[in-house]
Amino acid sequence: MNLSYLAPVGSVIALLFAAYLARGVLKSDPGSREMVRISMAVRKGAGAYLKRQYRGVFLFFVAMFLLLAAMAAGGFLTMFVPFAFITGGFFSGLSGFIGMKIATAANCRTACAATDSLNSGLKVAFKAGAVMGFTVVGLGLFDLSFWFFFLKFWYSDPAHLALAAGQSLESAQVQAITSAMLTFGMGASSMALFARVGGGIYTKAADVGADLVGKVEIGIPEDDPRNPAVIADNVGDNVGDVAGMGADLYESYVGSVISTAALAVAAGLEFKGVTIPMALASVGILASILGSFLVSTREDASQKELLTALRRGIWGSGVIIAAVAWPLIRIGLGPGYTGVYAAVLSGLVAGILIGYSTEYFTSDTYGPTQKLADSSVTGPGTVIIRGISLGMYSCVFPVLIVGVSVLVSFYAAGGSSNFNMGLYGIGLSAVGMLSTLGITLATDAYGPIADNAGGIAEMAHLGEDVRKRTDALDSLGNTTAATGKGFAIGSAALTALALIVSYINQVKVINPEFVFDMQITNPAVLVGLFIGSVLPFLFASFTMESVGEVAQSIVVEVRRQFKEIAGLMEGTADPDYEACVDICTKSAQKEMIRPAVVAIAAPLLTGLILGVNGVIGMLAGATACGFILAVMMANSGGAWDNAKKYIESGKHGGKGSEAHKAAVVGDTVGDPFKDTSGPSINILIKLLSMVSIVFAGVILHFSIM
Amino acid sequence: MNLSYLAPVGSVIALLFAAYLARGVLKSDPGSREMVRISMAVRKGAGAYLKRQYRGVFLFFVAMFLLLAAMAAGGFLTMFVPFAFITGGFFSGLSGFIGMKIATAANCRTACAATDSLNSGLKVAFKAGAVMGFTVVGLGLFDLSFWFFFLKFWYSDPAHLALAAGQSLESAQVQAITSAMLTFGMGASSMALFARVGGGIYTKAADVGADLVGKVEIGIPEDDPRNPAVIADNVGDNVGDVAGMGADLYESYVGSVISTAALAVAAGLEFKGVTIPMALASVGILASILGSFLVSTREDASQKELLTALRRGIWGSGVIIAAVAWPLIRIGLGPGYTGVYAAVLSGLVAGILIGYSTEYFTSDTYGPTQKLADSSVTGPGTVIIRGISLGMYSCVFPVLIVGVSVLVSFYAAGGSSNFNMGLYGIGLSAVGMLSTLGITLATDAYGPIADNAGGIAEMAHLGEDVRKRTDALDSLGNTTAATGKGFAIGSAALTALALIVSYINQVKVINPEFVFDMQITNPAVLVGLFIGSVLPFLFASFTMESVGEVAQSIVVEVRRQFKEIAGLMEGTADPDYEACVDICTKSAQKEMIRPAVVAIAAPLLTGLILGVNGVIGMLAGATACGFILAVMMANSGGAWDNAKKYIESGKHGGKGSEAHKAAVVGDTVGDPFKDTSGPSINILIKLLSMVSIVFAGVILHFSIM
Repeated sequence: MNLSYLAPVGSVIALLFAAYLARGVLKSDPGSREMVRISMAVRKGAGAYLKRQYRGVFLFFVAMFLLLAAMAAGGFLTMFVPFAFITGGFFSGLSGFIGMKIATAANCRTACAATDSLNSGLKVAFKAGAVMGFTVVGLGLFDLSFWFFFLKFWYSDPAHLALAAGQSLESAQVQAITSAMLTFGMGASSMALFARVGGGIYTKAADVGADLVGKVEIGIPEDDPRNPAVIADNVGDNVGDVAGMGADLYESYVGSVISTAALAVAAGLEFKGVTIPMALASVGILASILGSFLVSTREDASQKELLTALRRGIWGSGVIIAAVAWPLIRIGLGPGYTGVYAAVLSGLVAGILIGYSTEYFTSDTYGPTQKLADSSVTGPGTVIIRGISLGMYSCVFPVLIVGVSVLVSFYAAGGSSNFNMGLYGIGLSAVGMLSTLGITLATDAYGPIADNAGGIAEMAHLGEDVRKRTDALDSLGNTTAATGKGFAIGSAALTALALIVSYINQVKVINPEFVFDMQITNPAVLVGLFIGSVLPFLFASFTMESVGEVAQSIVVEVRRQFKEIAGLMEGTADPDYEACVDICTKSAQKEMIRPAVVAIAAPLLTGLILGVNGVIGMLAGATACGFILAVMMANSGGAWDNAKKYIESGKHGGKGSEAHKAAVVGDTVGDPFKDTSGPSINILIKLLSMVSIVFAGVILHFSIM
Repeated sequence: MNLSYLAPVGSVIALLFAAYLARGVLKSDPGSREMVRISMAVRKGAGAYLKRQYRGVFLFFVAMFLLLAAMAAGGFLTMFVPFAFITGGFFSGLSGFIGMKIATAANCRTACAATDSLNSGLKVAFKAGAVMGFTVVGLGLFDLSFWFFFLKFWYSDPAHLALAAGQSLESAQVQAITSAMLTFGMGASSMALFARVGGGIYTKAADVGADLVGKVEIGIPEDDPRNPAVIADNVGDNVGDVAGMGADLYESYVGSVISTAALAVAAGLEFKGVTIPMALASVGILASILGSFLVSTREDASQKELLTALRRGIWGSGVIIAAVAWPLIRIGLGPGYTGVYAAVLSGLVAGILIGYSTEYFTSDTYGPTQKLADSSVTGPGTVIIRGISLGMYSCVFPVLIVGVSVLVSFYAAGGSSNFNMGLYGIGLSAVGMLSTLGITLATDAYGPIADNAGGIAEMAHLGEDVRKRTDALDSLGNTTAATGKGFAIGSAALTALALIVSYINQVKVINPEFVFDMQITNPAVLVGLFIGSVLPFLFASFTMESVGEVAQSIVVEVRRQFKEIAGLMEGTADPDYEACVDICTKSAQKEMIRPAVVAIAAPLLTGLILGVNGVIGMLAGATACGFILAVMMANSGGAWDNAKKYIESGKHGGKGSEAHKAAVVGDTVGDPFKDTSGPSINILIKLLSMVSIVFAGVILHFSIM
């Protein structure tokens, strides 16, 4: 049975559901004039930043379009590639943009609802998060469907195809379609990289800068309106944690689907094989919608009950997809593919387990973060040592989980008798992991909205109890975000592995005679492995340095304002918020160039010098090392953040104590770890593969080895 | 021509030269009674620690001996293996012990000589360092020679050999000899691991603990005799930076020689091929001795001139070895091996370049460390972010240098036509890099001696100008230590690569039918790669956590003493030094168990579950990731240390300023980075291969994959 029509149907349903939710959010009360004013300031700052970012990115896309067009003209690529590249970037950017719009509309509404009760606050924030979640999956599936049907139509004419010797027409069609679709993945990854890196630098530089002077030096609370960087900080939540994350997960989502689709050819499954990941994604949307209705709780629910409610949604969706995937695969592939189902399931389970492992290491209800908080008593030095040690240790579990998932999905899908079926299974496990993205992203995206609502509550002087509620929402968001990050990182590793294989297949298509030597003892592979392993470190270095650099400018500016603006500290004069917003906007733009150049130049240079085998080594090294470094940075950062919150809840002397000061240093270091460098590495490892795939022809032609 | 007799000759010369230098050191004036008293306290503490350590390690070695003997009885190993294992461990430990003895004798003598002049201080400290340097290479070459000649004699009887089909007698002999010798490498690596990890934890826990209370909380200077942890801190220098480093470099040295020797069989070079690395090592000793005579300067030399003097020694030795290696290879291998010479040279040059790169990133005469110092103005948070970013960035260059060195040595040695010759070339580049270890280690080991001398000068109240001179010596030591670390890390990477190939060859010997699938796309290899990549992180986590844990106990103890001992702060009562020494000794012992278990269990478990291909993936991942992480941690740590010193020299408000406090936090974090975790990883990556080699038979027999 042809399941391919499920994809556009799922896409439309997701987008309609997102629109329905958005209406619900916008209908709720935006609060007092003061609150709307602050919200508008944040929205204006975020809009200005995104406009500027998209302008810069636009130039990049134009340049890449021309380059790809030239390559297409030279016969290295098909003519659709440049266009596919553009649409991938466009929709990725659009996902982030819509997410930002709804988030900046929801922040004051969440704060206002929180004046009623914790539960109403949660509802508004969660709805807004769900808008973003369903927009991302809806647009992703839309782009996928569009290109799939268009290319299928185009290549239905055999004259448009070059058949290899002994190749069936269908196989050639699927080949041509999935090759082109991989390029739109590169577009999405490029956009995601800019959004994540630029947004990540913005948000953390503003946050760190605001905290360093505000909390540490001057001793005013978080989000105090006297702090000149407070608006920039709140803008940062929206451009980094919302728009950046939206673009990022758009990329993860389509990346997992198209890399799996591309593996279908070699596995001999052809159209059926391409359809399965798309149909799974579509069914996942329905499961997520059903799951989101499970998120309800009584009016005076405790925080733990709220968490249970959110969990019920995620688990419910997971159970639905697990139940539906079985008949889906039976219908789509025919009998004898039970193992493929096991592969999907292994990904789903692995995602949840990674989420739990992340939670265990970063939540202050468990030992590791509590011990980290204890170490703050002996000062910032021990907090940092412990936090890094915690992050490094915590990597072991995701590595083992992904390792088991790789083996299970490979062998269950039949890898021991048909190697390519096994690889297809690995791809499907990534799809399984991300199938419920609609709802996991919703629980993830509501965090920064709650964070912003807290900021508005503070700045608009809504009173202690409201602030307490928004803090509770924010802290709940930290926990659910842990689960979300687990999915993002785990799926990135699996997708990257699938993409390495896609690269190998692409080389085979371009030059069927090419002799691979992927043995680890081949010096080109080894040196490639070393180079790949160092790339995540280089990338993290660039992004962290940028945060440090921009944060320092913010510190200087905030100090200047406190010194030069009379009455600022007393609250009788207004700070110049714009100045800080401006510094962040300009600097984040500038700072995102260097990492982007690395991500694109590294595979090209490696390929030109070490050849295809070197590139394969590089991709493997970057995936392994990048995965680990991303987990480490995310978990160290999360644990520092929550250790600080744990102390603020009254442990070790609470706020203002020496222990708290030490914990703030940990949190400061953790900010770029968890929200800038860590997540960017997820994108990096996929973008490296995408770039390798797109430039495979060039590398084969010009490589010296 | 048979060059094998060069090895014992070189060994004896090195040991005689060490004895001659030691006499010189012991002849010089140990200083006042007070100085001797302090020096004795340090020596007693260090002795007590080593005694305890060796007792613990002895039990481990007995257990391993029994295990290996059982395996030998079961036919998995030859009967020499258990004995070779023991001697490797014994000599590695002995190297550390002798180093510690001379260092603890030289500390007061250096302080006393520094009352004369900077230059005489340097001479005593450098001589003592050279004792250790030449002891390490002398004992290493002694052990190598002993086993080589003994095994050669034993296997000269064909009845002791099992010839494979079509194998020549000589080939079978070389095979049997090098196989057994690899085991003594495992003994050396195990001992080195304990010494580095245990000593590293001891020294940094004491250092961090002493600083956290002394410098940060109470505000007394470094090495102030009122600090109860000051003796433990000085003991730490000797058990960690001296004894630990001695055992470590012993292991590196013999590891590079035997891994290269083991590659000679597959390369078809047989006895000639085994002799070359041993002969090179021997000639390197002579070159180092000659080089050490170049280290002389006029009496009132500036610090820069002193550095130039030390450099002259290292460069001189390098030039000599470069000149002599050429005829040596010509004589040893015959004509047609120019490429092999190029491989040696590439290692020598790579070592020097890595040293320079380390120096650039960690010396305060260059931009990176100065910028790091600047970032301390905005507090500890930015110092940490910048320092980690610096370390991550600095990895790129060693990776590229090693990458080029691998390619050059592989292809120059003829890898494109004879794959195994290429691998032999890679091994020789490691030997080339370490050939001048005698002198590089001397310049490295003198650092902690100078550091100790400073402590004694402070505690014995020798006055400002003496302390200034010992500080200058210490700071000079930091710079030369950078070069030393470059050699240690670079050679570890190259040796580990050679050992991976030795492992593959060992598997081939045990089961010639074994079908390798080392393709990166093989899931076992991939999962192995992931597991291997996470091991250095796990290892670093364990060692750092231990430092944090023990340092916290020290902090608590020091605080207790300041609170409970009346008159301690005023200097009218003596602190209880013993208590701190005791805590460090006991805890370091306990804490070194966990990392050791990881290093030995990981290859076994990986092998039993993922099979040989999985082990190969694991070794590759651990080597790449471990190399990078080790460089990162060493360089971040070095830069933090020197950024602090830079501020102490009067920048950004100098000592006591807020910037200085922030820089001290950086240094505190950097301590375990650069002196515990980083160097331990070097050993880990080789020990993993050694363990895999020794247990290859068991893994082949019992693996489930």
